[in-house]
Amino acid sequence: MELPSKILERAVEQLSTLPGVGKRSALRYALHLMKEDELAVRDLSESLLRLKTDLHHCRHCHNVSDTEVCPICSSEKRQHGIVCVVENVQDVMAIENTQQYRGLYHVLGGVISPIDGIGVQDIEIASLLRRVETGEPYPVEEVILALPTTLEGDTTSYYLNRQLQASGVKITTLARGVAVGDSLEYADEITLGRSIAHRIPFEN
Amino acid sequence: MELPSKILERAVEQLSTLPGVGKRSALRYALHLMKEDELAVRDLSESLLRLKTDLHHCRHCHNVSDTEVCPICSSEKRQHGIVCVVENVQDVMAIENTQQYRGLYHVLGGVISPIDGIGVQDIEIASLLRRVETGEPYPVEEVILALPTTLEGDTTSYYLNRQLQASGVKITTLARGVAVGDSLEYADEITLGRSIAHRIPFEN
Repeated sequence: MELPSKILERAVEQLSTLPGVGKRSALRYALHLMKEDELAVRDLSESLLRLKTDLHHCRHCHNVSDTEVCPICSSEKRQHGIVCVVENVQDVMAIENTQQYRGLYHVLGGVISPIDGIGVQDIEIASLLRRVETGEPYPVEEVILALPTTLEGDTTSYYLNRQLQASGVKITTLARGVAVGDSLEYADEITLGRSIAHRIPFEN
Repeated sequence: MELPSKILERAVEQLSTLPGVGKRSALRYALHLMKEDELAVRDLSESLLRLKTDLHHCRHCHNVSDTEVCPICSSEKRQHGIVCVVENVQDVMAIENTQQYRGLYHVLGGVISPIDGIGVQDIEIASLLRRVETGEPYPVEEVILALPTTLEGDTTSYYLNRQLQASGVKITTLARGVAVGDSLEYADEITLGRSIAHRIPFEN
């Protein structure tokens, strides 16, 4: 596809570096922005830049934050002894949305994946181990491994579990089972199998 | 979905104004940019702004262009007497890609659509009529109506045909028919019907 303008071409090229955005979508975005108010485009342009210049990762949990320590880590109301280890920022949001968790987080920023060249030192594992070891900023009593159930996620959980054993901290993981509202008929066998194996007392 | 940062929230809000981009994709884009090089994000940010500040519409055909008159309109090699009327910039690119057309274009920037509040004066119809009437920048011999075969496209073609009648210019439209490589069995009835009605001499 040959574009009629170098400026358009450059914008399309750069928009198509966004995850899951092809040349065609990028062109649609660019042509849309051409028609927008200059003020709106200026705002967008600035906002994107601020993602790099003004946005931080929390010093303790590595969640994104406007401040050096995020509101969750600095909140008086959270249970400081529980740390939920997740792959990325979206996972924190998903768990926060449930309103069922009052502990803290630790965002690894990925999982161990030799095939993608992501090793132990490329993600926030050392800082997690240090957090448990030193008890800074808060002593840790329980680590919840809430990583994805993929080969990479499981590998990472296994590694963390082994590394954390010596510390004597309690290590738990998310319950896996048939989703609320799902019929058993359509649940996959592994999930249903785990649901049965890890059955829990009936609650009234 | 509550975001942990105002800066992130603002970026997500603005990215989700792009056509077909929801909050979830916008968040994915924003988090991706956070991880990118600052230089790359700065480039993207500038490119988007330049779409508004430095990109023009060609004075004659209203195609996007880095210059006041686009390379197609200013080319010596094109047939200046033929003007192909299209809905948008993407259509120009699609026709250019065929390398079968050597005439000029006229980009309407939309089609007449009362339901979306787009009337005759909201798209580049007056400038097309003026182009045919005045013979500026070039005398027009033929107008090809290459608008979509939708209710709105057909309405626009019908309107243009009526307005152009008096000028005595030749008015043509794209051939419609079964696509090259398609089997008749799966062609829709209207298309196949048109293919038969407008059959052409067999070429060796």
